[in-house]
Amino acid sequence: MHLCQSDRVTSSSVCVLGLGLIGGSILRAAHDAGRPVWGWNRSADSISGAAADGYDVGTDLTAALTRASDENALIVIAVPMPAVDSVLSAIAEHAPTAPITDVVSVKAEVAAAVAARGLQDRYVGGHPMAGTNHSGWSATDPTLFVDAVWVVTTDPGVDADVWVRVARLALDCGSVVIPAESVEHDRAVARISHLPHLLAEALAIVGAAGGPLALGLAAGSFRDGTRVASSSPNLVRAMTEGNAAALRTALDEALQALIAAREELDQNSTRTLVDDGHAARMQYEQHQRFDITGITPGEPGWREALQDAGRRGGVVRQILSANPG
Amino acid sequence: MHLCQSDRVTSSSVCVLGLGLIGGSILRAAHDAGRPVWGWNRSADSISGAAADGYDVGTDLTAALTRASDENALIVIAVPMPAVDSVLSAIAEHAPTAPITDVVSVKAEVAAAVAARGLQDRYVGGHPMAGTNHSGWSATDPTLFVDAVWVVTTDPGVDADVWVRVARLALDCGSVVIPAESVEHDRAVARISHLPHLLAEALAIVGAAGGPLALGLAAGSFRDGTRVASSSPNLVRAMTEGNAAALRTALDEALQALIAAREELDQNSTRTLVDDGHAARMQYEQHQRFDITGITPGEPGWREALQDAGRRGGVVRQILSANPG
Repeated sequence: MHLCQSDRVTSSSVCVLGLGLIGGSILRAAHDAGRPVWGWNRSADSISGAAADGYDVGTDLTAALTRASDENALIVIAVPMPAVDSVLSAIAEHAPTAPITDVVSVKAEVAAAVAARGLQDRYVGGHPMAGTNHSGWSATDPTLFVDAVWVVTTDPGVDADVWVRVARLALDCGSVVIPAESVEHDRAVARISHLPHLLAEALAIVGAAGGPLALGLAAGSFRDGTRVASSSPNLVRAMTEGNAAALRTALDEALQALIAAREELDQNSTRTLVDDGHAARMQYEQHQRFDITGITPGEPGWREALQDAGRRGGVVRQILSANPG
Repeated sequence: MHLCQSDRVTSSSVCVLGLGLIGGSILRAAHDAGRPVWGWNRSADSISGAAADGYDVGTDLTAALTRASDENALIVIAVPMPAVDSVLSAIAEHAPTAPITDVVSVKAEVAAAVAARGLQDRYVGGHPMAGTNHSGWSATDPTLFVDAVWVVTTDPGVDADVWVRVARLALDCGSVVIPAESVEHDRAVARISHLPHLLAEALAIVGAAGGPLALGLAAGSFRDGTRVASSSPNLVRAMTEGNAAALRTALDEALQALIAAREELDQNSTRTLVDDGHAARMQYEQHQRFDITGITPGEPGWREALQDAGRRGGVVRQILSANPG
């Protein structure tokens, strides 16, 4: 399927499917950016707050998608992973040409579901790296994405115009865009987002096993080290289990470092782990983004050039496109 | 050696040996509490700031200890563990009867060094659970200990009057006191203070191994999970290696949980770790201290009663003593 370019580039409309913390915040941020935006949510309970605040939201998926098709809106899938497939099915039926993105925290699994429906030509994945431990409409925040990074995928075959529309939404929400292939994204977030959850859970378990004395002595290092263990177990499981393959690699590397440390501790030393860990944290603190410039989506080699720049720490802060839309 | 009680109880003087972050902050907090206080530091460089701020500090250890002996001051050892033994030697020589405490982050090793010098009758260990990632006089803060917990040890043979003097200093600095035996303290801090450092180092290593893309995507969970990896490697090594025996147990428990999680991850599940970790974090968040009351140091069974209460989550907020001092 090849989309008619003129259809796509003339629309700034956004259709958000799923109005949890991320979807609801995108609805509000896109609205504040002056874009026509409407939202759908399966349960009526979850949108009463949005409706009361005057947003154009409803529980009729067919209506939301028919309008997306009519206005050639960018469809944003913001439902949990288990609900993605049924939403894709509805999109295929009711919005046969509109561009599609998503905000699910793993990307290869969504890309595979999209491809299984034959929708890959008009899909570009997204992942805004923002969130809180809270959920529901009352937790939504139109500034949630300001200065956050928002991954926009650059898988082989990506359509330049759809890529630009997705990146533009991220920029309109205040984020910077990091271009990355889905599998690279998943490997990276396994290291810096999913592994932290597993280590936090383990630390909480060992701390609590020390009873009230240990919990009473716990100060900043334990509080910070276990913070994300207070996240909803369902969300943590969905996130970590959805990225199981990449997480295995990250966990294996962590186990390797900790088992080596355990052996060194038999000699009363923690030198290797502490020196390497400190050097790694310094790398993180000194990490410098650079602005990706001079790449125009659609020109020869644009995908590879973006992806290479993303790998090296580059971010997109503005879109240079022959087709602004 | 049995101290003359009337000597001890009439003095509120404090002599702080070592003026780093903790020692310097105690000097300032004790001063603000209206107590006569002076300090010693080996290197002159480190105390120029304290002297400029008008504190009574110097580099003559014999003079500081002779005055402590004359005024029956509470001597606070606030030097790093490797320097403890030489300080104890000077105390034995120049302040043969004054009560002694310390603020080193491990307690059994200090207690053993104290006993090796035959000073155990006038020593009670301490550990204020406070600190920052910064060091030096400019980082000292008289409010550093406000609302912190300060462990005061209750090892067999502890002298009630010395215990009261140490606890009173902690309370004067704004802390609450948790009574605990040295070995119990060391086991507890291995879980909630030293293990967090090892896990933070490992997380930093795995994150940085993902290169600029991973570091560029890192958000709150990675930042918080690796925060303490930015601490000075020398301090982290001193702390963790000084508590190697207890830390081995804590690390073994963490490895056990993580290896089991790795096996479960082969079935694409993280259920056990996530459920157990969340429950443990909830225990921590719901942990309630209670106030220890009705125990008078020196009365029969006071040591065991305090220790038992500390184990169950009790804290001392005021001293009930027949001998206020």
